[in-house]
Amino acid sequence: LLIIGEKLNSTILPVREAITSRNEKYIQELAYKQVAAGADMLDVNTAMGLENEEDDMVWLVQTVQSAVNVPLCIDATKASVIKKALQVHQGRAMINSISLEEKRIKEILPLVVEYGCPVIALTMDDKGIPDSTEGRLEIAEKLVEIAEQNKISLDDFYIDPLVLPIAVNDKNALIFFNCLSEIKKRYKVKTISGLSNVSYSLPLRKLINRSFLTMCMALGMDAAILDPLDNKLMSALAANNILLNEDKMCQAYLKAYRNGVLLD
Amino acid sequence: LLIIGEKLNSTILPVREAITSRNEKYIQELAYKQVAAGADMLDVNTAMGLENEEDDMVWLVQTVQSAVNVPLCIDATKASVIKKALQVHQGRAMINSISLEEKRIKEILPLVVEYGCPVIALTMDDKGIPDSTEGRLEIAEKLVEIAEQNKISLDDFYIDPLVLPIAVNDKNALIFFNCLSEIKKRYKVKTISGLSNVSYSLPLRKLINRSFLTMCMALGMDAAILDPLDNKLMSALAANNILLNEDKMCQAYLKAYRNGVLLD
Repeated sequence: LLIIGEKLNSTILPVREAITSRNEKYIQELAYKQVAAGADMLDVNTAMGLENEEDDMVWLVQTVQSAVNVPLCIDATKASVIKKALQVHQGRAMINSISLEEKRIKEILPLVVEYGCPVIALTMDDKGIPDSTEGRLEIAEKLVEIAEQNKISLDDFYIDPLVLPIAVNDKNALIFFNCLSEIKKRYKVKTISGLSNVSYSLPLRKLINRSFLTMCMALGMDAAILDPLDNKLMSALAANNILLNEDKMCQAYLKAYRNGVLLD
Repeated sequence: LLIIGEKLNSTILPVREAITSRNEKYIQELAYKQVAAGADMLDVNTAMGLENEEDDMVWLVQTVQSAVNVPLCIDATKASVIKKALQVHQGRAMINSISLEEKRIKEILPLVVEYGCPVIALTMDDKGIPDSTEGRLEIAEKLVEIAEQNKISLDDFYIDPLVLPIAVNDKNALIFFNCLSEIKKRYKVKTISGLSNVSYSLPLRKLINRSFLTMCMALGMDAAILDPLDNKLMSALAANNILLNEDKMCQAYLKAYRNGVLLD
């Protein structure tokens, strides 16, 4: 599983404050801790409540990359913000995200092509997120066609079938699982999800999120945007990896156990 | 998920002692606690270290059924033990187990047919458990043929693809998952597994067992033999059920939360 750390996000109040006040130390420690805990990439977002999303993104990308040596996942809906980030990013960033929305196809897709970036593609269009598995699979089909037309390697194309909260509709996780399995069966693309939407407004959200991650991994999900500082989540992930033979001879699991970072 | 409580097993020393000493109170409490914790059935086994497996089984079945109102899963390799148990069992017992081993087909299969019982069928034959997915699927195919020839309803036919320890071969869980998915795809049978083999000799076994159960449920497993007194396992199971829409409107999850039995 490709692990994308979710913490450098302006929706999290102390992070937003650290970005506003240009608190390098706070941001760099949060970056370092996520990588030390196992993140392969870090999501960066400056969209929430800040004065200048573009300048903040440029500062955030540079500040993070001067502390840790992993690619960043540029999380923005505005093409101008993504473009500025890509201009200063060292190495191959991931773009989060495109979708079938006309504006994103028109403005963000060209950046994906120009910079040759891995990209997250959401199964939604200008009418929103379809309720049904079939509706989302139709969008996935069109997204794959767009990737192929634009010569984007499917290896770099991460479809997110967009899990919605169970508390809103008790079939929401099941719809997501069905989409995930079908997409993996039909196309040679990658798949990705965030973990926290699914449990929105329910008690013991982390318990639900862990089960959700585990089920997604059993169904072949390739990447997740998650909190690598959640030790129980990362312990479940270590167990999942030995079950799926993603951890040869259980070496990483046993090492984590010896280091005392695995929680039962 | 059909939950079969695993605790009334003579391999567990205090249980063995309680059977030997005919300690009704101990056995009945252990039965009651498992049912209260959510077990739909209880496995009963008297094979280990006892003087008379048949008499012990008869006593155990009667003692348990005078305390709790659930069917029992008669866990024995000897046809004579299963037969005695079925003669005294109230309602429809499950037989644990048949396989392609000649002796079990010859001696236990007739009891399945005579009593019209649900049965667990192991993917092994007189040569043992095949290492490969293909080998186990060949046995599953033959088991399904036997079920059909003997007019056993596939709804009552629980195939166990037999998970072996990851510590012995790091592909063992993956082989099991592949068998499980294929069997669910090919046949209208039920599937079942125990949870503890997979983690044998590794640290934090319960962490691994929870992930294993969660992955099995994502792949459509129908039943599990497990410890319903393991609160963390049962909490994961409650979360799994809301994710798979097996718990309408999250009612059971929210009730368990309010009752304080869910552990994060």
